[in-house]
Amino acid sequence: MDQNHQPRGCPMASRRFLLAAAAGLAGAAAGARLAGAEPDHPPLIKTASLTTDRLLPFHGRHQNGIVTPQQGHTYFAAFDIATDKRAEVAGLLRRWTQAAEKLTQGQPLGSDDPNTPPPDSGDVLGLPPSRLTLTFGLGPTLFTKDGADRFGLAKHRPEAFVDLPRFVGDQLVPERTGGDLSVQACGDDPQATMSAVRQLMRLAYGVATIRWVQNGFLAGYDPKITPRNLMGFKDGTFNPDVKDPKITDRLIWAGDEGGAWMRGGTYVVARPIRIALEHWDRMKLSFQEQTIGREKRSGAPLSATGAHNDEFTPIDLDANDRDGNPIIPENAHVRLAAPQTNDGAQILRRGYSYDNGVSLVAERWPPWRHAVELDAGLLFVCYQRDPRTGFIKIFDRMSKFDMLNQFVTHVGGGLFACPGGVAPGRYLAQDLFEA
Amino acid sequence: MDQNHQPRGCPMASRRFLLAAAAGLAGAAAGARLAGAEPDHPPLIKTASLTTDRLLPFHGRHQNGIVTPQQGHTYFAAFDIATDKRAEVAGLLRRWTQAAEKLTQGQPLGSDDPNTPPPDSGDVLGLPPSRLTLTFGLGPTLFTKDGADRFGLAKHRPEAFVDLPRFVGDQLVPERTGGDLSVQACGDDPQATMSAVRQLMRLAYGVATIRWVQNGFLAGYDPKITPRNLMGFKDGTFNPDVKDPKITDRLIWAGDEGGAWMRGGTYVVARPIRIALEHWDRMKLSFQEQTIGREKRSGAPLSATGAHNDEFTPIDLDANDRDGNPIIPENAHVRLAAPQTNDGAQILRRGYSYDNGVSLVAERWPPWRHAVELDAGLLFVCYQRDPRTGFIKIFDRMSKFDMLNQFVTHVGGGLFACPGGVAPGRYLAQDLFEA
Repeated sequence: MDQNHQPRGCPMASRRFLLAAAAGLAGAAAGARLAGAEPDHPPLIKTASLTTDRLLPFHGRHQNGIVTPQQGHTYFAAFDIATDKRAEVAGLLRRWTQAAEKLTQGQPLGSDDPNTPPPDSGDVLGLPPSRLTLTFGLGPTLFTKDGADRFGLAKHRPEAFVDLPRFVGDQLVPERTGGDLSVQACGDDPQATMSAVRQLMRLAYGVATIRWVQNGFLAGYDPKITPRNLMGFKDGTFNPDVKDPKITDRLIWAGDEGGAWMRGGTYVVARPIRIALEHWDRMKLSFQEQTIGREKRSGAPLSATGAHNDEFTPIDLDANDRDGNPIIPENAHVRLAAPQTNDGAQILRRGYSYDNGVSLVAERWPPWRHAVELDAGLLFVCYQRDPRTGFIKIFDRMSKFDMLNQFVTHVGGGLFACPGGVAPGRYLAQDLFEA
Repeated sequence: MDQNHQPRGCPMASRRFLLAAAAGLAGAAAGARLAGAEPDHPPLIKTASLTTDRLLPFHGRHQNGIVTPQQGHTYFAAFDIATDKRAEVAGLLRRWTQAAEKLTQGQPLGSDDPNTPPPDSGDVLGLPPSRLTLTFGLGPTLFTKDGADRFGLAKHRPEAFVDLPRFVGDQLVPERTGGDLSVQACGDDPQATMSAVRQLMRLAYGVATIRWVQNGFLAGYDPKITPRNLMGFKDGTFNPDVKDPKITDRLIWAGDEGGAWMRGGTYVVARPIRIALEHWDRMKLSFQEQTIGREKRSGAPLSATGAHNDEFTPIDLDANDRDGNPIIPENAHVRLAAPQTNDGAQILRRGYSYDNGVSLVAERWPPWRHAVELDAGLLFVCYQRDPRTGFIKIFDRMSKFDMLNQFVTHVGGGLFACPGGVAPGRYLAQDLFEA
């Protein structure tokens, strides 16, 4: 138990490797954490999957992980700032930027000394880079908290960056809500995403503490297939076409309206939404389909009448049955989410299923018992250029009328401003802190 | 919100598909949930991954998921029996067996009526079968609880099926400990494993309620590489050779000693072990390596002296340095775990990392603050023919002396008897309930 033992069996191989890594010699080319290791230790990984297409660039006009094709796993984290010094916050964002440059490129954070704690936990040594992206955000409370302009940033808070209103049905748990900073790691491996955030937590010691996190996953469907959510429905069929710059510039990326630091940035709403799966599972198939407004198996809208309908068949909100009643119910989820019923409002959804095991809950339906039930649902994540005309616009009505509301509860989350992308040599939100 | 709406846009496609599935026509051949769908809806999945080698057989002399090459994800669940009728417990095991036969073969549980709740939640429709295995166990409390022989089974409780003793350092949370029945789903997709247990929960309504669950994952290393755990060390290097029947019969599979129902069965210990990762990350590399007894990068034992050492280099527990001190410390993890120091005791480890987000804890080390920290660690799972000479033998000493104990806390779990495998037409533990 003596931590002051002299080091024994001094791991030269490890040390040499880590030195090389620290000098930027390892990993960069092949994208493997252990590529470039000394010749007497052959690289641990030589697989077809280790091609550079599994490394995604960190630098660019926009942050990555937003319009990036969705990876299989996520780890979303929100932090509280624990200092009152603006320079320390800027310093953290600089350290995080430098770390993200390495982590997303499959490089360890480096170490050169067996007598110090390794800067990188090492739990992804030799693991493929897994298309890791790291997307950072700033919370409203970084600008103004309890009425105070904490870091002299309040004057740079964009008009669009409002506080989220309280919505009907919100049951937000304080320990799962808000935060001064956010980071979303996305990647194809749960250990890769968790490890990346863990390293960022370590770099924040003394400046910021973790407030809440939520991991999530997408079922591993063929990439050409829309994955099903935990309710058994295809989720994500209609999303803005992120390959069209006209659309992304209109719906996702901020222009000049938020100041230089938000140019090319966006706003993210992330909310863990618990789903009463036991309740949902007890509903008859036709009722599930009316609630959503789509067929469960095919994903086709209930209004589809042709011979070859699928999830991409356009929704006909005006279709009526013989009695003149709408085929897609007035309060069906797809109707309330549709741009047509929201003055054209659209958001880029990029959510994940989450599974926090089970917990004791008081049921909201007969026989109103207390029971241990699945603590699972959707980590709803959406991006938009302006939350007032995006999530807030759409969800305000949805929170009041959606048939789905009897099965879902928003239990936390927040709104964060994601600054524009980072150029090499600069750090995230530098234009804000050095304005 | 009216659940009695007449079904609209009646989803004939879904219904026809589900009818076909119920009749066993779908999925069986190709292993895809949607294979065999009607011709006007082409099968959703046609990928190379959908070969039968991703389906693992359910029937056999032993239950599957034990010596099966380890899949990427797990969902472990423990249930409490909520009835006093033995026949209802047997009936549940029959339903679970029948469901497991379908679920592990990529078949939905079937539905034929839009006016009833679908028996299968449908959240894995179209998903590859993901090498799903389901492994069932019976808890000690199924035989004897508070001194009572609940179901007349006490006389069939094998001698080896003892209650786990209380170990030094145990901090077991009642809500995460014990249970009358257990099931471990393993598979290559987190939604597949969760969905399978969810269907079993539904089949248990009225007979058994969920007590605790823990999901877990393995980092997605190349299958030829020993994956690293959250501490950054390779985990699972030495395990009994499950390809050698002499070894598995000696160490894993019960013979006649436990009665007919346990023949070919085994005992599983599953324990969520929280790891103080923030504390671990602050330790210098050499101390981490002494704690484990291995080099972090290569996995080689600290005693290795040759030029080409790796994780498979045999551990030399007798090696001393020049001063006569053991090179692998007296209380290093590998020394205490080694068969040589445990009268030859060996277990089959099959654990997973777990990540439950963060929670508020009182730290066990200076400055003893309260802090929000990672609620993550190892879902330790091991199999053995006799827990008295397996886990209990090894862990009794380890719990007292292992240097690792300052970083790890056992917070729940249990011991379960996994009956022998099931032949077609029979159900799990039938020999016990019909003895």
